[in-house]
Amino acid sequence: MKRKYLTHPTRPIELKAGMTCDKLLEGLEGCSFQARSLAQAARIWAEALDDDIVIMLGLAGAMVPAGMRKVLVTLIERRFIDVIASTGANLYHDFYETAGSFHYLGTPNVDDAKLREDMVDRIYDTFADEEGFQGLDKKIGTWATKTLEDRPYTTREFLYLLGKEANRLSKGEQGILSAAYRKGVPVYCPAIGDSSIGIGLAGRSPRVIFDMIGDVEETADIAAMKRTMVIYVGGGTPKNFIQQTEVTNQVLGRHVDGHRYAIQFVADPPQWGGLSGCTFDEAVSWGKIAANAKQVGVLCDATIALPIVAAAVLTRRKGKKRPGIPKFSF
Amino acid sequence: MKRKYLTHPTRPIELKAGMTCDKLLEGLEGCSFQARSLAQAARIWAEALDDDIVIMLGLAGAMVPAGMRKVLVTLIERRFIDVIASTGANLYHDFYETAGSFHYLGTPNVDDAKLREDMVDRIYDTFADEEGFQGLDKKIGTWATKTLEDRPYTTREFLYLLGKEANRLSKGEQGILSAAYRKGVPVYCPAIGDSSIGIGLAGRSPRVIFDMIGDVEETADIAAMKRTMVIYVGGGTPKNFIQQTEVTNQVLGRHVDGHRYAIQFVADPPQWGGLSGCTFDEAVSWGKIAANAKQVGVLCDATIALPIVAAAVLTRRKGKKRPGIPKFSF
Amino acid sequence: MKRKYLTHPTRPIELKAGMTCDKLLEGLEGCSFQARSLAQAARIWAEALDDDIVIMLGLAGAMVPAGMRKVLVTLIERRFIDVIASTGANLYHDFYETAGSFHYLGTPNVDDAKLREDMVDRIYDTFADEEGFQGLDKKIGTWATKTLEDRPYTTREFLYLLGKEANRLSKGEQGILSAAYRKGVPVYCPAIGDSSIGIGLAGRSPRVIFDMIGDVEETADIAAMKRTMVIYVGGGTPKNFIQQTEVTNQVLGRHVDGHRYAIQFVADPPQWGGLSGCTFDEAVSWGKIAANAKQVGVLCDATIALPIVAAAVLTRRKGKKRPGIPKFSF
Amino acid sequence: MKRKYLTHPTRPIELKAGMTCDKLLEGLEGCSFQARSLAQAARIWAEALDDDIVIMLGLAGAMVPAGMRKVLVTLIERRFIDVIASTGANLYHDFYETAGSFHYLGTPNVDDAKLREDMVDRIYDTFADEEGFQGLDKKIGTWATKTLEDRPYTTREFLYLLGKEANRLSKGEQGILSAAYRKGVPVYCPAIGDSSIGIGLAGRSPRVIFDMIGDVEETADIAAMKRTMVIYVGGGTPKNFIQQTEVTNQVLGRHVDGHRYAIQFVADPPQWGGLSGCTFDEAVSWGKIAANAKQVGVLCDATIALPIVAAAVLTRRKGKKRPGIPKFSF
Repeated sequence: MKRKYLTHPTRPIELKAGMTCDKLLEGLEGCSFQARSLAQAARIWAEALDDDIVIMLGLAGAMVPAGMRKVLVTLIERRFIDVIASTGANLYHDFYETAGSFHYLGTPNVDDAKLREDMVDRIYDTFADEEGFQGLDKKIGTWATKTLEDRPYTTREFLYLLGKEANRLSKGEQGILSAAYRKGVPVYCPAIGDSSIGIGLAGRSPRVIFDMIGDVEETADIAAMKRTMVIYVGGGTPKNFIQQTEVTNQVLGRHVDGHRYAIQFVADPPQWGGLSGCTFDEAVSWGKIAANAKQVGVLCDATIALPIVAAAVLTRRKGKKRPGIPKFSF
Repeated sequence: MKRKYLTHPTRPIELKAGMTCDKLLEGLEGCSFQARSLAQAARIWAEALDDDIVIMLGLAGAMVPAGMRKVLVTLIERRFIDVIASTGANLYHDFYETAGSFHYLGTPNVDDAKLREDMVDRIYDTFADEEGFQGLDKKIGTWATKTLEDRPYTTREFLYLLGKEANRLSKGEQGILSAAYRKGVPVYCPAIGDSSIGIGLAGRSPRVIFDMIGDVEETADIAAMKRTMVIYVGGGTPKNFIQQTEVTNQVLGRHVDGHRYAIQFVADPPQWGGLSGCTFDEAVSWGKIAANAKQVGVLCDATIALPIVAAAVLTRRKGKKRPGIPKFSF
Repeated sequence: MKRKYLTHPTRPIELKAGMTCDKLLEGLEGCSFQARSLAQAARIWAEALDDDIVIMLGLAGAMVPAGMRKVLVTLIERRFIDVIASTGANLYHDFYETAGSFHYLGTPNVDDAKLREDMVDRIYDTFADEEGFQGLDKKIGTWATKTLEDRPYTTREFLYLLGKEANRLSKGEQGILSAAYRKGVPVYCPAIGDSSIGIGLAGRSPRVIFDMIGDVEETADIAAMKRTMVIYVGGGTPKNFIQQTEVTNQVLGRHVDGHRYAIQFVADPPQWGGLSGCTFDEAVSWGKIAANAKQVGVLCDATIALPIVAAAVLTRRKGKKRPGIPKFSF
Repeated sequence: MKRKYLTHPTRPIELKAGMTCDKLLEGLEGCSFQARSLAQAARIWAEALDDDIVIMLGLAGAMVPAGMRKVLVTLIERRFIDVIASTGANLYHDFYETAGSFHYLGTPNVDDAKLREDMVDRIYDTFADEEGFQGLDKKIGTWATKTLEDRPYTTREFLYLLGKEANRLSKGEQGILSAAYRKGVPVYCPAIGDSSIGIGLAGRSPRVIFDMIGDVEETADIAAMKRTMVIYVGGGTPKNFIQQTEVTNQVLGRHVDGHRYAIQFVADPPQWGGLSGCTFDEAVSWGKIAANAKQVGVLCDATIALPIVAAAVLTRRKGKKRPGIPKFSF
């Protein structure tokens, strides 16, 4: 009877000098624990790109200050992702870098009160220029007042325009917003007020009004276009916002089966019960994820997991075309 | 020279039969690690209630399904908190329970595909009735269409009306929304589209429009009223939304010094660099927290940390009046 | 069909001023996530004390520097535990405090290089006197050279004698070792070389020799005496050492069924695959835990979980006698 | 003044198809959070191999069942490590695989009671054959009885002989023990009783006696030979056992300065106060780590962090000779 369980031996990985990320992950598929999950994430993503799907990315955590901006640009330009839901902070920091400013290598072992005196902001081991941020806050506010009409905007419309502006200001750098603008990748920000973008828009007249429910409807429409893949870099609001598209469609009476491909790089374990850490198995009960979905979660800091998986996917998709890249007619 | 560091011996806690939560935490103040932090959180909260402050609570995680609803009602009714920023999910589940429905004791060791067949949703070790939820989604949608005027609403206005409705439907149960409605405690939801409330409002005409920037401005105004205390139950959008009030005020040219009291029960460590897990020390660099604030973070599941700390605060504040409870004139 | 799953509604906890730890945990049993697990741990422990069992405690982490010494003394004196397997560090720090020295309240936000200059050791947020430690290292070495005969000692024999010495040196303070000595509770230390006890014994002649396999056999004998309960405060070597008693007995041809009661307070999640974080479900597959055991793991810092659970057990067992307290005839 | 902090901009990583692990980590050095730490670990390790040092590896967690055996063999054969302290379990599982048996790919979503009925052991997502283990337990016991003389053995002596036996039994496979035997790399196991090796030795006559304090002295001697590097794969007893060598030498009156190079892949955060999760900064206060050591900790599952870092070090050291590889004359 034990033969039922003992079918495939683990295959201990053998390292080689000059090993690519692709080969490393291939080797880790025969290993265990989070290494195997990491390897499965790369396989699921690379193979899903042969299917006719829409790929939705949820982006949380301080990924842009952490140096992940160009990884995300590559994912957009190669169309390994089709839709983005992000925290406002990532988009704000992305605009900031695209327009020519920087985040800085720092350390968590520092006197934060002294940083404050010098107007230096800390994001764990990364520093930033508070005056630069305050300047950008105001610039975004002024730009919005000047640019926007007096009507509600979905965050997708707003961020398209902001991406256009980022693209205009850029001297060669590309960012999430500018690349998404150029590539026709819609970007949503379900908590846009909760960020420096929101701060920049405060106290202005006329007040910018966001059509949040429009975002909900649009993302549900997108999820109903085709089978879907979801990718979560961190949890939080972006993860839930994409997860819920299947539920929205069910409540709207549309026939959907749950997302068909799903990977996540989230450092939260499921035992706290929150949505950030919850497994895709749990999501099956809600109908958010299809029972037979190809899915895996990796319990790992996304700054490690995302680049290595994306590098492997890039290698595996070299020279391959993706069928049915979705086009959006907003 | 070592005498400089070796000043106060730890005081190993002694347990007693019949020990209250208050006495337990008193004893843990002389101990170490997260126990000491937990004890400090109770002390900071209880003592802050003697100061003339506004207390802002950020509420994330599935706290209502986890059985924390009445804890939160007590905090509102006793005015241990004055303002709430919450995820939509907590408010939705709160409305659901207040209106007479239930969450159920479950287990994570279950076949989620079978749960799906039976339309049972799982939240880690807790079950819920998907049909009940879909019914409520539609009910909220219908109520909103019927109730709201054709103009943008801040989430505070919207949730006040929803609290009024919860209060009307309640047969004795109190919830976050209904208690907040009765007690004049404003409730904000910076990502309201990202929840079953957002789902319930989808596909309706006229579309409900939220004034998210109005929320940003109002919470900044509140934070400028008095010195502030912040309490974070989980991280995510609610934590950042309250943290940022100090930055908004600085950008608006108001003189603020950062929050003066701060406690958080967040299970994320700071090493992932995200806002959820970031320390209050880090927040000092941003000017969100005052350099001399009384502050502590507890790395612990909030379902453990919140009730024990709140029980101790309840004991310590018995018979005591709080000076300067803020009143809001919205 | 959903009725099969939706049987017992959660019972949101209601806080009261003056609430005892016992009542708090009673209330949390109707809640979810780690709070429910914490409450179940107290129930399992309190109820197991009515059964005729041996209770084995695994003790890891810096619990004595963290102020947990007297909690452990109470557990020994009340015979809520019968056998201890510990890291060497906890026993060393226990001896140190029992003999009249102290650990000190400190902070992690400090310059460790300066601490080193002043010979102050840091244990996260707790300080200690390196010179005091070095003095004790030598004192233990000298004592051992003087006291021990030239034959292998199980760690249980050695720690009994060390407990006797602690008891002799004590001016009123009780510790794990001294209380265990007085109450006939055997203490094992499966990695005794890996601690300041081991350091203190280094470079001495004749060399102290430990009979580690004697420890393995004795603990297996103890586990074969009666049904067993296991309690893990932290993971590591002590947890595995107690877990394995059931396997040892099976290999020795004894009929055992796995531990019948099991609770753990371990902050490691199971997803890393290590023994520290592994669940009792996983242990069922190994025959370490009985399939029908009453068992629960709590993902929480033990400095929070242990005292609150122990306080509740103390309250629930007030005035109750425990049947069949095991006596050991070493 | 802010210029003091804002000196080196982050350098967002750019992915390329066919990217090697080496180039990935080179790119991540300009990023943040755990990615930067991971990259620094590779740099520190690769550069330390140009210095005249002894490199000590602490090995905990179920690394061999997880498929890391051959990674460790490569590290031994290339002499990227010189000394090993391990849990017993890793060495047991290593012997098992070297002798021709397997671990198996499994899943955590399984009924453990059924696994038990079929005598299948689970290690998170990995399965093993309990009968195979019980057979090996007895085989090790019989081998030891037949092979060992009636005197205390350090675990290093014992594991050398066990490595010789593993090498004899191997049909081409290499493991930690067999490679260490062939390459003259001493292996220590400070809690050898706490493992299936200990179980296998139970109930035998004459009883095998381990000289644990001999292990303590020998490792201290080794640490006093040269400057030292420490590498921790997981925490627990192996980490502490190597950390303490500097303290032992200080107590023995030898002049040592703390380990000079230090990297760790441990998933425990420091906030629990235990030795597993403690930072190298904390260790500076104890004199375990030199104040000016090149050191970094990576908060990550070691099954991810170890192979990628080792692959990069392999690439960077290709064709390079290491000066002063230590030889041990036991």
